[in-house]
Amino acid sequence: MGRVTTRVPVVKLRYAASAPPASRPDTVVVEEPLEIRVDGEVLTVTMRTPGADIDLIHGYLVAEGVIRSASDIAGARYCAGSVSDGPDGTAQNTYNVLEVDLARADRARLLAAGRIAPTTSACGVCGSASIEALTAKLPQSLAGLPVTLAAADVPAYVAKLGAGQGVFRSTGGAHAAAVFEAGGDLRAHAEDIGRHNAVDKAIGAVVRAGREPPLGGVLAVSSRASYEIVQKAAMAGIPVVIAVSAPSSLAVAAAESLGMTLIAFARDDGLNVYAGAGRLGD
Amino acid sequence: MGRVTTRVPVVKLRYAASAPPASRPDTVVVEEPLEIRVDGEVLTVTMRTPGADIDLIHGYLVAEGVIRSASDIAGARYCAGSVSDGPDGTAQNTYNVLEVDLARADRARLLAAGRIAPTTSACGVCGSASIEALTAKLPQSLAGLPVTLAAADVPAYVAKLGAGQGVFRSTGGAHAAAVFEAGGDLRAHAEDIGRHNAVDKAIGAVVRAGREPPLGGVLAVSSRASYEIVQKAAMAGIPVVIAVSAPSSLAVAAAESLGMTLIAFARDDGLNVYAGAGRLGD
Repeated sequence: MGRVTTRVPVVKLRYAASAPPASRPDTVVVEEPLEIRVDGEVLTVTMRTPGADIDLIHGYLVAEGVIRSASDIAGARYCAGSVSDGPDGTAQNTYNVLEVDLARADRARLLAAGRIAPTTSACGVCGSASIEALTAKLPQSLAGLPVTLAAADVPAYVAKLGAGQGVFRSTGGAHAAAVFEAGGDLRAHAEDIGRHNAVDKAIGAVVRAGREPPLGGVLAVSSRASYEIVQKAAMAGIPVVIAVSAPSSLAVAAAESLGMTLIAFARDDGLNVYAGAGRLGD
Repeated sequence: MGRVTTRVPVVKLRYAASAPPASRPDTVVVEEPLEIRVDGEVLTVTMRTPGADIDLIHGYLVAEGVIRSASDIAGARYCAGSVSDGPDGTAQNTYNVLEVDLARADRARLLAAGRIAPTTSACGVCGSASIEALTAKLPQSLAGLPVTLAAADVPAYVAKLGAGQGVFRSTGGAHAAAVFEAGGDLRAHAEDIGRHNAVDKAIGAVVRAGREPPLGGVLAVSSRASYEIVQKAAMAGIPVVIAVSAPSSLAVAAAESLGMTLIAFARDDGLNVYAGAGRLGD
């Protein structure tokens, strides 16, 4: 449980080296399936890096529109029946199945709402239909959220995102996401092999700390900005997304349509604004 | 249909520039949902870059164990009812829903096989269960496939992969995958916003050209090597995977368990071998 990295044997071959390479230990990021069950029903299975699973389910269920606050979850526990053979031959809990009990009475409606659009797929048959369906699910408009930030401060957000990337530095295989207050204070940071999981973990940590959408503030990701990233920020009521890498067409269209600010290619020497430039000052 | 990149307005802000930035066109990679229906049933929706959709469904259905050759598909067509409003107010096909008719008589069994383990999720509740389920689905062992390659030739594979990355060069937002003969000849190359889609497209192109698993040869990817990438190579009978970036723990475990060779961090100055070093000569 909670193994974020692990050691595996590797043969590191360098073309310039004269000596033949020997096998030695290397650190890689852990990837394990997590099955999320809500009120007894399997909602999804995601390939994630173990650790911060409770954050992950909070963020995931907010993104799916199933919950709006931590109090909507009555309890969450690792399934006792989810076992594999341990090193000593005994059964071991894999900690890869999480059972979530919803607190609210209208569970069926909430579950149905969440299942309209699974995270790993689009709900419509074209991008604009996906955006329309997302707009219909949004509990609040994002256009009116009064977040502003100075363009000159964006590198500081990216630096804080990078400062927490210990798993990436030791493995090269993890993405990071961070949620900030509008003023730039870091609220939550997460790393995961999946960029969508990192976002769920960071948003989920903020929701577990007692906040409800709209969270406001800024979401920064070490990855590209795909539609899914913009979708998760929108459902959390975070109007500004900063991505270190490239945006997709649908991410740009969704951010534009929902009144969000989308910054991509956020680098030391500059940034690109693909939507909502009005929130950016000098 | 087939729009791989598109132009969107961008404000490019450079901190060192004295003049205020103006909005100008930028090229971004297109992301659109593709719904895959097989014999009338929705199998999956994937966020992909349009183009090479027929390749994609061939590769996807091989990876899911639904088909083994192009002749297993009787026909595929874009759903006529999948429309959005065109620029002139008329209905336009979105080309985002593909209907596939299977040629083989035992459709129910094939579909059931494919649905045991959807690509976007793991089949088990722990990594080793996922690998066991994959092993059970594999039509052939990979350990015995007689592919060898010289370590010194790996940069040539990566160079051929990179030579085809036109979408990446213009957008920074696409992954690439390439399938090679054991001798290094390029069989198929694809780019897509999703690394798993790029792999499906490249493998699908080879299958459409008349080959059946085990394809043999080498799969190279511009991305990290996650479990899903190793899984798709395994189902296609490609025993060697070269990744430019990092591997995950489950990718290493799967490659080791299935008798595959997994090379990651394949760079100009060297490479790391995480499984199956025996296939590598000097």
